Amino acid sequence: MTTRLLLLGAGRSASSLIQYLLRHAPTENWFLTVADANPAHLAPVLAAHSKYARAVPFALEQEALLDELVEQADVVISMLPALLHGVVARACVRHGCHLATASYVSPEIRALHEEAVTAGVTLLMECGLDPGLDHMSAMRAIEHIRARGGRLTSFKSYCGGLLAPDAEGDNPWKYKFTWNPRNVVLAGQSTAKYLENGHPRFIPYQQLFARTETLAVPGYGEFEGYANRDSLSYRAPYGLDGIPTILRGTLRRPGYCAAWHALVRLGLTDDTVNLDNPEAMTWAELVEAYLPVSQVPDLDLSVRVANYLGLDPTGEEMGRLNWLGLFSDRPVGHANGTPAQLLERLLSEKWQLQPHDHDLIVMQHQFGFELNGAVHSLTSSLAVLGDDATHTAMAKTVGLPLGMAVRRLVRGEVAQRGVLIPVQAALYEPILDELAADYGIVFTEEEH
Amino acid sequence: MTTRLLLLGAGRSASSLIQYLLRHAPTENWFLTVADANPAHLAPVLAAHSKYARAVPFALEQEALLDELVEQADVVISMLPALLHGVVARACVRHGCHLATASYVSPEIRALHEEAVTAGVTLLMECGLDPGLDHMSAMRAIEHIRARGGRLTSFKSYCGGLLAPDAEGDNPWKYKFTWNPRNVVLAGQSTAKYLENGHPRFIPYQQLFARTETLAVPGYGEFEGYANRDSLSYRAPYGLDGIPTILRGTLRRPGYCAAWHALVRLGLTDDTVNLDNPEAMTWAELVEAYLPVSQVPDLDLSVRVANYLGLDPTGEEMGRLNWLGLFSDRPVGHANGTPAQLLERLLSEKWQLQPHDHDLIVMQHQFGFELNGAVHSLTSSLAVLGDDATHTAMAKTVGLPLGMAVRRLVRGEVAQRGVLIPVQAALYEPILDELAADYGIVFTEEEH
Repeated sequence: MTTRLLLLGAGRSASSLIQYLLRHAPTENWFLTVADANPAHLAPVLAAHSKYARAVPFALEQEALLDELVEQADVVISMLPALLHGVVARACVRHGCHLATASYVSPEIRALHEEAVTAGVTLLMECGLDPGLDHMSAMRAIEHIRARGGRLTSFKSYCGGLLAPDAEGDNPWKYKFTWNPRNVVLAGQSTAKYLENGHPRFIPYQQLFARTETLAVPGYGEFEGYANRDSLSYRAPYGLDGIPTILRGTLRRPGYCAAWHALVRLGLTDDTVNLDNPEAMTWAELVEAYLPVSQVPDLDLSVRVANYLGLDPTGEEMGRLNWLGLFSDRPVGHANGTPAQLLERLLSEKWQLQPHDHDLIVMQHQFGFELNGAVHSLTSSLAVLGDDATHTAMAKTVGLPLGMAVRRLVRGEVAQRGVLIPVQAALYEPILDELAADYGIVFTEEEH
Repeated sequence: MTTRLLLLGAGRSASSLIQYLLRHAPTENWFLTVADANPAHLAPVLAAHSKYARAVPFALEQEALLDELVEQADVVISMLPALLHGVVARACVRHGCHLATASYVSPEIRALHEEAVTAGVTLLMECGLDPGLDHMSAMRAIEHIRARGGRLTSFKSYCGGLLAPDAEGDNPWKYKFTWNPRNVVLAGQSTAKYLENGHPRFIPYQQLFARTETLAVPGYGEFEGYANRDSLSYRAPYGLDGIPTILRGTLRRPGYCAAWHALVRLGLTDDTVNLDNPEAMTWAELVEAYLPVSQVPDLDLSVRVANYLGLDPTGEEMGRLNWLGLFSDRPVGHANGTPAQLLERLLSEKWQLQPHDHDLIVMQHQFGFELNGAVHSLTSSLAVLGDDATHTAMAKTVGLPLGMAVRRLVRGEVAQRGVLIPVQAALYEPILDELAADYGIVFTEEEH
């Protein structure tokens, strides 16, 4: 019998997921419906697969159509913005249809757990990269340590969507957008929480990018990590309730965070107030408006900024700010925006991924554990390069685990109903094996 | 014919307003209904006035009762939280009843303007202290300058709810709560906007309390002002559209802002994240959790904080933090709170107004103007002391202008309908005269 899959949302980040689903549709006996606002771009991809795939136009506000599509499906895969997953999940529960996504379990989704169990529906969340592959790879390593009789004392986990070394070029930030720019600009605007040696640690936003940790990934050099908002909520799902040290963080290339810290201190990442600025205001004028009135006439703007922030006027942080054009006569190009909106607009040009650029996904778990009275440390690292501008490392590492999770779900290998994340071996073991065997996506372990 | 007044909300800050309304009810032929959640405390006040006043129990969620009360009134005065004024104003429009409040014109209220005009209803907003008395006194001074032929080039306006000098005692902050503590803790958590010499100026939250201006009020010494969120929105209502310099700010005693800046930088004013903290966590433990791990063993916590923030360990800022008990073994007393909630709980004890304390309201307008080719400056200052713990300076300066505005409204002296703020002479002139004649609330002007 054919299993009817419904994919909601087919933006750029869904490319590898769609390729995976089409690859396995004939042998797994799937029929795939891709519902997207602009299905035209899917035509060339789906043309060769018309026996087991079709595209339908679908806009987010068409709730009746959503209901109709979900009713005709056995499993729904959603790549829609996370905010919409409540509506989608409720439709799935109503029609007795499983759901798989790469998004976090929101309170709204969590609240559907009992109802989903009663309806015999699985809401399989957090099956992409981060969250997703991070859970899977961390749980495999944790279970290995436990199987050896080890007792975990420390777990730090970092992930970042970055650039392949050859795409970094002369960009001193060594960063371009491979994911939602707005989320990058607003990253960390809340107190970060983690645990260190049994003590809670808090880092407020205005200190976050000044308090980073450095780490190395074999073959890819050094990175710096800043703490994520909430590292504590993974203790329970990972079975690490008593662990003295736990931290989750985001990776950037060294130097990025110190320069970003300068943007935060200037005030350019604030998203709470509209500035009443004209569209023609220049970046130099905007930056000048954040400085106290100059006591020294004719002082260069970048020197004034450096003095204000206590930075070396010829140092690396100022070099990165200057490279962005913050002291230039370029217009901000957007009237009455928030500082964060204006900054996002500038960065979207400066940090735009070019067709020839390859991206890079880096993940590293650092485990500390006691075994036979000795202290051990284990590092598990992953680096994935993008194939091209379509099958980016981001699209692959988000889409492939999600596609593989759907495959397990359809095969009946996921017995649990209700809201799940991929922390059980029955789910992550075959997915990690398939990623390694078919895609060369393998974690490298180093033990000291 | 009797005019029926309905006062919604009769908390502590309504004391002077109620006294004013009762004082004038017999001669003005008013009947006052006071609707409050706990009307019992009003019994002794209203007992002597039962011929023209009564209290009724009223809870905010009783929308049907609100409708009934508004229907029976000619003018509604609301001292409810500003968030509720939309519901109240819609009831007023529905029943053709005027409304007066001391709260800002929200977008929700502004949207009712046309409907209110059609219904012949006046929604008279911003008639308290700030907003309220600030508009009235600034507009009188501005009109005087204009009448002399002066052209305004600069307008800075500051207001603060503080302590009478004799109540400051050994409190190094020279501050206690005379208004909503939560608003004080969260003050300024957005980019402040103002104009200086024709150039926009922006100050982000993380710099706000470090960039203050100092000013003096005759007879009351020095104060420091930090910029309010939006100084620009008063240009149009004041008729100051082309003015090169405009700034509105909040006053504190010198030293407060530098110490508050230290709290901001530590991260203790963040309200966006719950800390998962136990109730028994001590303040020393909480503060410690915000510091990087100490490299020097046994270093005193307050010294570590001073080093981290770059402050003198024996300086005034650290003295103020220490006085709050931030480095003590006192429990935070609240499980899983936000930093701002924990701080508010501590401050509510440390900064609690005592029955014998007198408060102080300070307001100062600073005008710059050109007249006959010369540059002039004019300062208009007000200081009001509280009478006692009931008739605080805050209760008087919020309640009396509001009561007087209601009196003008009932007398038919306010011809305009729809949403208004007190910037027209017909309203502010008699109110400022009455405040001076009956209550000694007078602005002192100094011209240079």
